Amino acid sequence: MNMINLDYLSANPLLPEVQESMIRAIQSNYGNPSSPHQLGDKAAEALSQARDSVARLINSPSPQEIVFTSGGTESINQAIKGVALATSKKGNHIVTSNIEHNAVLRTLRRLRMMDYKVTSVPVDPNGRIDPAAVERALTDQTILVSIMHSNNEIGTIQPIEEIGRVTRARKIPFHCDAVTSVGVIPIDVQKLGVDLLSFSANQFYGPSGVGSLYIRSGTPLWPLLDGGVQENNKRAGTENLIGIIGMGAAAELALRDMEPRISHCLQLKKKLVQGLKDQIEEIFINGHPDLSLPNLVSVSIRYIEGEGIVLMLDEEKILVSTRSACAAGALQASHVLLAIGRDFADAQGTLVITFGLETTGADLDRFLQVLKTVVRTLREMSPLYKK
Amino acid sequence: MNMINLDYLSANPLLPEVQESMIRAIQSNYGNPSSPHQLGDKAAEALSQARDSVARLINSPSPQEIVFTSGGTESINQAIKGVALATSKKGNHIVTSNIEHNAVLRTLRRLRMMDYKVTSVPVDPNGRIDPAAVERALTDQTILVSIMHSNNEIGTIQPIEEIGRVTRARKIPFHCDAVTSVGVIPIDVQKLGVDLLSFSANQFYGPSGVGSLYIRSGTPLWPLLDGGVQENNKRAGTENLIGIIGMGAAAELALRDMEPRISHCLQLKKKLVQGLKDQIEEIFINGHPDLSLPNLVSVSIRYIEGEGIVLMLDEEKILVSTRSACAAGALQASHVLLAIGRDFADAQGTLVITFGLETTGADLDRFLQVLKTVVRTLREMSPLYKK
Repeated sequence: MNMINLDYLSANPLLPEVQESMIRAIQSNYGNPSSPHQLGDKAAEALSQARDSVARLINSPSPQEIVFTSGGTESINQAIKGVALATSKKGNHIVTSNIEHNAVLRTLRRLRMMDYKVTSVPVDPNGRIDPAAVERALTDQTILVSIMHSNNEIGTIQPIEEIGRVTRARKIPFHCDAVTSVGVIPIDVQKLGVDLLSFSANQFYGPSGVGSLYIRSGTPLWPLLDGGVQENNKRAGTENLIGIIGMGAAAELALRDMEPRISHCLQLKKKLVQGLKDQIEEIFINGHPDLSLPNLVSVSIRYIEGEGIVLMLDEEKILVSTRSACAAGALQASHVLLAIGRDFADAQGTLVITFGLETTGADLDRFLQVLKTVVRTLREMSPLYKK
Repeated sequence: MNMINLDYLSANPLLPEVQESMIRAIQSNYGNPSSPHQLGDKAAEALSQARDSVARLINSPSPQEIVFTSGGTESINQAIKGVALATSKKGNHIVTSNIEHNAVLRTLRRLRMMDYKVTSVPVDPNGRIDPAAVERALTDQTILVSIMHSNNEIGTIQPIEEIGRVTRARKIPFHCDAVTSVGVIPIDVQKLGVDLLSFSANQFYGPSGVGSLYIRSGTPLWPLLDGGVQENNKRAGTENLIGIIGMGAAAELALRDMEPRISHCLQLKKKLVQGLKDQIEEIFINGHPDLSLPNLVSVSIRYIEGEGIVLMLDEEKILVSTRSACAAGALQASHVLLAIGRDFADAQGTLVITFGLETTGADLDRFLQVLKTVVRTLREMSPLYKK
């Protein structure tokens, strides 16, 4: 019985080409890109190639606007804290949504401890933000808007371009957490009109622990990491060159193969949603029916707990998640599901099913078959469930 | 003609065993350590093993006190900014030395922009700090002392244990930047009495872009990266597991082989210092003659510029550095050399020669021979030099 991975969101498997690029990097034993000698030159060239690939993936006008980080969380912390600290003389107000990832929420909670004020714009039942609501939330103290591109729990894609028009008209820096979008669906920073965009290699078959922050030239920002002059003086510290090379290789492939990857996922998604609706009673499919990620399905299964389902599926070698792995330690109902109107009990019975290149229709058939049994078993034990 | 690497400080070469551990990690395609299923369990176990190895290297009483970071710079920023922000209600004064690494200096400069005050304790001509001077610098506003374990430009080792006694008596958190010491010479956090200790894998034949921060339990600290609950809730973000596994393997070997590595380096150092004194006139050997790193020699060669020497040696495939690669972009005289009493011109003529496992006596012979010619050529062109 093979393992079926329906938790791509936690960490994509590394593609063979990405593995090879990283193994080559390990074996070439590059030096430090900052060293003014031969070993340094080779390292600097490898770094520069990876930066070019990543810049192309998001259509950044210049590779100099790409800063490599230790992942999406660092990018997000850097963007939000960096702007807040650099512009504290101008104001102390930040606008966000009520369905952001913990990396945004907790960064903003930290800033509130430093006397910043935060306004959270709500979402509609599909999880969409109204750009007009963002505009209404702005004050003359607003120094930053931070809205995610797509949601990591329900997949809904936000009207970033429209929000970008609002922030540009008001000359307010706009950060977009695009961790679950970059490398999955087309992202063009020039079209989106964002000033900062956070993303991470492990969402497009690259390694974990490496990401990037796009910083539009001229955006006010204090570095989170002070020290050496690496990364165009925006992020000190000797680079994780092996990881960065892996990210560069993954970015090349994501750009090249984006269209076939999306159609593959959309087919799977359609099959999965239909299968869930056909085979399991009393469920909700969460997120916008069309404006959403092709590789994610969120389903709330009434009367039972998601954690129980995950454990029982794990025994059948099927991996799914109840929500992002980052929040796995926190046993609270998902703020995202509550924001779109699920009640506490239904939020607890929610699975986030994410898939990708290696997923097949047969995997989904088996998943649906096992899920049906698991749900029946759990519902029979549930005091909430009455036939 | 083989390349001779005398710039180990910029980045140690990866040991074969470390390479193998990282390649195995890449090929096993671990999941996310936070996922509550089989792939996550395997990843969490690998993470935990690496943490144990790193904890043993510095004799940390518990692996829970080790936080993995993206390298020495992040560890240092996390330690200093983390304590400063967490204790800002208590005071705003920080004590440091005037020979710290840029990661410490610039982090403190950043905090001064946020109304913190910094006192820099001077060093003697050997680069040593007087623990009594640290004690005199403390005020009732002092919230942190940050002193490096060994200096990255001159190798001098500081009396950390004595300073630790001072800070413990006053209950002031003590951070030690031990990047150039950990894995090179014995470090025992329990003996040193530090509360925070920063270090990095690429100083002991592990990968660049991964490091650790030792945090004594109970030390007040705000995370630099807010978000998920990784790293015992002290550092959010999906882990760079491949790099961390490499660091764990490197830590195991560093602990096992520390004694023979030190004797190998000490032999080379003795030979190199003697050779420099015998073969080149008008030089200074910088740093403490005994209390210093075994793998580093700093030499100021009068009347010429270090940058010129580095470039000419590079043409002969010999790699050396004028100072830490992190400062390579900054064309100022080294603050460390000025602090120990070198004048501006001599500071500019300084080489930092670092070596290690693969360095041989024959490498040093060839280096000395080429250096002699290079120095003669450059001095003949120098307006400062009169025979």
